[in-house]
Amino acid sequence: MKTRAAVAFEAKKPLEIVELDLEGPKEGEVLVEIMATGICHTDAYTLDGLDSEGIFPSVLGHEGAGIVREVGPGVKSLKPDDHVIPLYTPECRECKSCLSGKTNLCTSIRSTQGQGLMPDGTSRMSYKGETVYHYMGCSTFSNFIVVPEIALAKIRTDAPFDKACYIGCGVTTGVGAVTNTAQVTVGSNVVVFGLGGIGLNVIQGARLVGADKIIGVDINDDKKEWGERFGMTHFVNPKKVDGDIVAHLVELTDGGADYSFDCTGNTEVMRQALECCHRGWGVSTVIGVAESGKEISTRPFQLVTGRVWKGTAFGGAKGRTDVPKIVDWYMNGKIEIDPMITHVLTLDEINKGFDLMHAGKSIRSVVVF
Amino acid sequence: MKTRAAVAFEAKKPLEIVELDLEGPKEGEVLVEIMATGICHTDAYTLDGLDSEGIFPSVLGHEGAGIVREVGPGVKSLKPDDHVIPLYTPECRECKSCLSGKTNLCTSIRSTQGQGLMPDGTSRMSYKGETVYHYMGCSTFSNFIVVPEIALAKIRTDAPFDKACYIGCGVTTGVGAVTNTAQVTVGSNVVVFGLGGIGLNVIQGARLVGADKIIGVDINDDKKEWGERFGMTHFVNPKKVDGDIVAHLVELTDGGADYSFDCTGNTEVMRQALECCHRGWGVSTVIGVAESGKEISTRPFQLVTGRVWKGTAFGGAKGRTDVPKIVDWYMNGKIEIDPMITHVLTLDEINKGFDLMHAGKSIRSVVVF
Repeated sequence: MKTRAAVAFEAKKPLEIVELDLEGPKEGEVLVEIMATGICHTDAYTLDGLDSEGIFPSVLGHEGAGIVREVGPGVKSLKPDDHVIPLYTPECRECKSCLSGKTNLCTSIRSTQGQGLMPDGTSRMSYKGETVYHYMGCSTFSNFIVVPEIALAKIRTDAPFDKACYIGCGVTTGVGAVTNTAQVTVGSNVVVFGLGGIGLNVIQGARLVGADKIIGVDINDDKKEWGERFGMTHFVNPKKVDGDIVAHLVELTDGGADYSFDCTGNTEVMRQALECCHRGWGVSTVIGVAESGKEISTRPFQLVTGRVWKGTAFGGAKGRTDVPKIVDWYMNGKIEIDPMITHVLTLDEINKGFDLMHAGKSIRSVVVF
Repeated sequence: MKTRAAVAFEAKKPLEIVELDLEGPKEGEVLVEIMATGICHTDAYTLDGLDSEGIFPSVLGHEGAGIVREVGPGVKSLKPDDHVIPLYTPECRECKSCLSGKTNLCTSIRSTQGQGLMPDGTSRMSYKGETVYHYMGCSTFSNFIVVPEIALAKIRTDAPFDKACYIGCGVTTGVGAVTNTAQVTVGSNVVVFGLGGIGLNVIQGARLVGADKIIGVDINDDKKEWGERFGMTHFVNPKKVDGDIVAHLVELTDGGADYSFDCTGNTEVMRQALECCHRGWGVSTVIGVAESGKEISTRPFQLVTGRVWKGTAFGGAKGRTDVPKIVDWYMNGKIEIDPMITHVLTLDEINKGFDLMHAGKSIRSVVVF
């Protein structure tokens, strides 16, 4: 079949909207009609050529929602007309990682996914006879796409696609970091560094679990209003703090944060996030993706005196199990998404979404097919 | 009263055995007759002038066991003839840290303890009219010493002093790192870097909780026999491994350690300990004390992919609560101490204990009064 898609033919070039050839689903695969997709920093990271493992030509996009149109042989958990969110972190429920019960980092199809291929080692997409590669196992910038069954979360049918798609990455990453990875407890003091889309979702995650002080840290004062909209109680602009930001935050939290989160990707900020944690029990969680080659550092004394340094990918969420719950939280009003979707675009306007992100003008742009 | 003690009159000089003047216990304080004391690397660290907060003249020693001889006003939990272990990490059960239930790092007397003083801001010791300072709130190199009530663990009276004293630091630090801080679970794979006194106690802690593979790593082949004596299943000498030690350990553990421990104090080794952990859930615990100014580093990717970096002091043990239990474990044969006490000395021979430690000839030397 044919599908319209925004193709990244090479790094650092705008996406091109073309009609691709798409093969149908093979064993264990599912054809999904993507109804909406968010545009995430990770897509830009790859498009900008910063991802050393980026493959071109490919169809980017990993934050989508859609409808099952056809299932391949052996698919048991999904049928046509089911509503789904593609998962860049699948959940096979059979590998060592899934069975450990201790991580969401399913390894069953990691190697082929990293090569831009379906689990059988081939791509379903081509353009003028040449292979076009999948991206993060999702490629949601294509109107129709083939995805492995284990990489699809089945969600309720009354969730609007143009909001639910954001749960495919940003919402789950931020909220899940709070609920799954850090496991923030009621009454805690929380410090969040970086109030972009992820940071705001960390803030609303902290509000959801009943945190006490929720302190947002950003060098852009415009983010104060955004943070407050989702539950932030205090805003700190490090550029306007006299002296050491860490000391300032320790004072503001009466001894240090119970939980801190880095949503900046800046390794110096990651260190501040650890060191502003409370002696004895503070837990700092790295969410942001650092530039390649950058390292985090601290004095081991910080750990010996009880701080814990951890990280999270996809908010520690087991996609097929947890994503439907987060959709419920949204539908039940426990978390908000609508105000974060600042721009809705057509597929033809997709490059505008990248421009808005780079200019810091959007929290999230969503493409509706 | 008078007491014999080994005094550190200044850094980098041998201890001198002299007779000190000792004031009796004040409000909330207890006079203890120290029956035995271990000699620990931390004592040497201070004596060698490496501890920027070291104070002289002082009576070192923080790993003792003894008998209560007199209690000051207001002391309720102890009476004469009780057997006790002094605690350099006290447990007041009233401060924010104690009440948090999340840490053993009681802060109630931290500032005076750090200044070599009792909680009222004075010392009980003097020599020829000049103040001699306390050390870590313990000063177990003195035959008689005054200790705050909250810094004494009451233990059973049938535990031999010359073994129980080791529970005052080394045993609890190593075993507690496993049981309290990392909370190693049955069937886990554990990697222990550095097989000195702490490392051996980590190993027997791992054996106690039913770990599967217990891998010891040390550059000294003589430690293989020592490790095996306490439950080590595999020994790795990094100097004899072709290629990368981390890759070797990941292979040996079929994907990485579930838990690793640094008992070396070397920040490069701390990094290896983190990075040899299993993707998704491996927990690395820093126990060793690093040289001042040294920092630990890693790529944040290590954390984002699920490894956790933490640290421990006094094995995360709440002294008055947990130390008596560890004494029980020893008396019930759950853990061993006797083979680790390689040398028993008199107070007059105490400097020999430091020499043995520096020469790597002892696991633990104990002074018996």
